[in-house]
Amino acid sequence: MRKGLKIPEPTIERLAMYSRPLETLLEAGTILVSSERLAQSCGVTSAQVRKDLAYFGEFGVRGVGYDVGDLLEEIKKILATDREWTLCIVGMGNLGSALVENENFRARGYKFVAAFDSDPKKIGKKLPCGLTIESTDRLRETVRARHVEIGVITTPRTAAQRIAELLMDAGIKAILNFAPVQVRTRKPCVIENVDFTVKLENLVYHLGKIP
Amino acid sequence: MRKGLKIPEPTIERLAMYSRPLETLLEAGTILVSSERLAQSCGVTSAQVRKDLAYFGEFGVRGVGYDVGDLLEEIKKILATDREWTLCIVGMGNLGSALVENENFRARGYKFVAAFDSDPKKIGKKLPCGLTIESTDRLRETVRARHVEIGVITTPRTAAQRIAELLMDAGIKAILNFAPVQVRTRKPCVIENVDFTVKLENLVYHLGKIP
Repeated sequence: MRKGLKIPEPTIERLAMYSRPLETLLEAGTILVSSERLAQSCGVTSAQVRKDLAYFGEFGVRGVGYDVGDLLEEIKKILATDREWTLCIVGMGNLGSALVENENFRARGYKFVAAFDSDPKKIGKKLPCGLTIESTDRLRETVRARHVEIGVITTPRTAAQRIAELLMDAGIKAILNFAPVQVRTRKPCVIENVDFTVKLENLVYHLGKIP
Repeated sequence: MRKGLKIPEPTIERLAMYSRPLETLLEAGTILVSSERLAQSCGVTSAQVRKDLAYFGEFGVRGVGYDVGDLLEEIKKILATDREWTLCIVGMGNLGSALVENENFRARGYKFVAAFDSDPKKIGKKLPCGLTIESTDRLRETVRARHVEIGVITTPRTAAQRIAELLMDAGIKAILNFAPVQVRTRKPCVIENVDFTVKLENLVYHLGKIP
């Protein structure tokens, strides 16, 4: 990949998506994969796959396909997912409890090292994953001591911005927000706001087109 | 909007995103919004906003901005979110329980009318939202009786594909899958697979670029 090349956001998201079937193929011992097969697994066109991968130079061989292992390794390097990242989660309701145990996070190198809540009834509770819920009052201290890199917010909407401020004050530079409100960050902190209903709107748009 | 015009998938997703701050502005009584302000609320460029909205003809007035109410109404019409949609959810663990109570769904016209699980200990349990968990054995019958349009899957990965088949057999034409596995559907059923870690990979890509 050329240095300093700016890759569009949607391409980054699709690269992450491509890595999923590639992992499955690698585990199954498959050596080569065509852009068509990769495209089909991800619900995009093969032209899209070729265009996205062209950002990183010549991976594929025309008529033969891509080397599964090489391609996966290259994508992981680009996305910086070739290492482990440490996460904390704030808000241990149903959603927080579901995420902290989600096998996808662990499988992809995202490791929760702390869980926080402000409810005295939850503080001190041991989770199946092994973590003990701590008070948000201890957030700054714990985040620094455990070198947390990414903060995940699963609080009610009213608390989300305040928690984001706490995370930034503690030195966190990346936040994934699941609270149903757009949370704002200041540089250098980056944020992704997750809104489940956005995906639904994709669906109903298509549903409206089915005769 | 021109009839038969094919709108790219990412534009559809961004339109849904734009509708969020527009709703807030409308509630606050704001009449006009600039592409710059809309862009800032959503973390995209103003050029992107103008390009996306240009698909639907001339909304904005140069130097003045967009009429908040008109723009929101038009986006809702395009996305087919100007009506209520009925949903069922399968898999009432932590994630299912969180989603069924999520205020965003209800606020956007997505109404859960049935919840299913295969665990006899959960079947018959009444949820805070008012629904009673039913056995997946009753899925086909209930989906038809309550005219369910969209199925949400929050089961373990091993059950997801089987549940998708059940939903399709019951006549469901749109599925939102949260299980950590790519579920496949056949026409005319459309699917969106939600993978939380894709959003994380966006974050770590940017995190890797912070000095």
